[in-house]
Amino acid sequence: MPRYALLVEYDGAPFVGWQRQTTGLSVQQVLEDCAAPLNGGVPAATQASGRTDAGVHAEGQVVQIDVAADLPPLRLREALNAYSRPHPVSVIAAARAPEDWSARFSCIGRSYRYRILNRRARPALLAGRVWHVPQAVDAEAMHAAAQTILGRHDFSAFRAAACQAKDALRTLNQLDVRREGDEILVHTAARSFLHHQVRNMVGSLMQVGLGRRPVPWVRQLLDGRDRTLAGQNAPAEGLTFLTARYPAPLDWC
Amino acid sequence: MPRYALLVEYDGAPFVGWQRQTTGLSVQQVLEDCAAPLNGGVPAATQASGRTDAGVHAEGQVVQIDVAADLPPLRLREALNAYSRPHPVSVIAAARAPEDWSARFSCIGRSYRYRILNRRARPALLAGRVWHVPQAVDAEAMHAAAQTILGRHDFSAFRAAACQAKDALRTLNQLDVRREGDEILVHTAARSFLHHQVRNMVGSLMQVGLGRRPVPWVRQLLDGRDRTLAGQNAPAEGLTFLTARYPAPLDWC
Repeated sequence: MPRYALLVEYDGAPFVGWQRQTTGLSVQQVLEDCAAPLNGGVPAATQASGRTDAGVHAEGQVVQIDVAADLPPLRLREALNAYSRPHPVSVIAAARAPEDWSARFSCIGRSYRYRILNRRARPALLAGRVWHVPQAVDAEAMHAAAQTILGRHDFSAFRAAACQAKDALRTLNQLDVRREGDEILVHTAARSFLHHQVRNMVGSLMQVGLGRRPVPWVRQLLDGRDRTLAGQNAPAEGLTFLTARYPAPLDWC
Repeated sequence: MPRYALLVEYDGAPFVGWQRQTTGLSVQQVLEDCAAPLNGGVPAATQASGRTDAGVHAEGQVVQIDVAADLPPLRLREALNAYSRPHPVSVIAAARAPEDWSARFSCIGRSYRYRILNRRARPALLAGRVWHVPQAVDAEAMHAAAQTILGRHDFSAFRAAACQAKDALRTLNQLDVRREGDEILVHTAARSFLHHQVRNMVGSLMQVGLGRRPVPWVRQLLDGRDRTLAGQNAPAEGLTFLTARYPAPLDWC
């Protein structure tokens, strides 16, 4: 069966997350069901590079989809965008992919952005897109703390209780914190992340930003490998999946 | 009665516009009604620097509000944000204003941004915030055409039929068009604008961007002063009121 790659943008707010669940509508279900007319009337099988949680957004999620019909990627993209119209899911690009290519297992780099709105007044235009923190935040202290956990470590301290990964060893390539006016932006990249790792890291960095913990505390937390000691898991709505990288570039159209 | 200035952000989507109307909820009604507890139980009187249409957003709308209570601007801001909570309206800052100060008539400069999403796929994350134009657009041609209508002119060609201004003579100080990835951003500034002027200018520039009209057509349109010949009025959802400028700066807090 032909395999395709999709570059997908979505607003996470109305979904139970990427993954199909019985509790509500998922991004996966929207795409799989919308592909049914091109797949003999049955939902198509998909897999994503990053299984985002409920409320988490994506600008460049990469999805593999197996569809019975052999058609130009452009037509698949247009068809999916037509059928999915009521939902805030948009296929920005599509490509034909090799049959042994996996959106999840072939992926060698993932990146996320976390947005914090740091001002007294609650967000109006950015509602649902940012973590609103009204107190004064020291973004430079957060950045300094972030630099101490770059590299290859056991990230158990920042792992969700429900995380299914066999081990917690990961290599964190980027964790940048910078202020842009009222916003504090966190950019992070790694080959892969543990479940809730980004949100747990941001939540812990925020303890430093608020002055409740000193800069070295984040590294001590990492070394302690105890997830019960980390800061609050930062809210899902501030997080956006940005990019997925593959060894052989896809021929997007 | 004490007069205050408010710096207000709102998402225009759920509102009939800035101005109070019997047909639905306006931003003005939200603010006036939310101030009632500080105004002897009756709605407070407001006026805005720019009366935005239904669907138009604001990042920095300036509003005057007369409230019976004499209180620190900070408290007024916090109270309005608490009472308006269910609505996507947020008071970013407040200031005490002189009694002869008018948000509308004292204003000597207004600026707007118009966002166009120029890609095949419809918007997911930017739904309701951009004009989606799927065809190829030449932003440089739009910018060149825009430069030909800067300065002091009769802008009747870009005026709404319902415009109530006595004359159409306005001075256009800025009308910049630039591409940023998939987005085309239009920034414009003037002392004041006619009703629908920004959206009519953007709609006409788009005729050039799409190659349906040559660059000199926009200036010919201006000189013809005939509003029936202009391009489509660009959709409200792409427009955001950015700033209002006053001769004496307000002491925001």
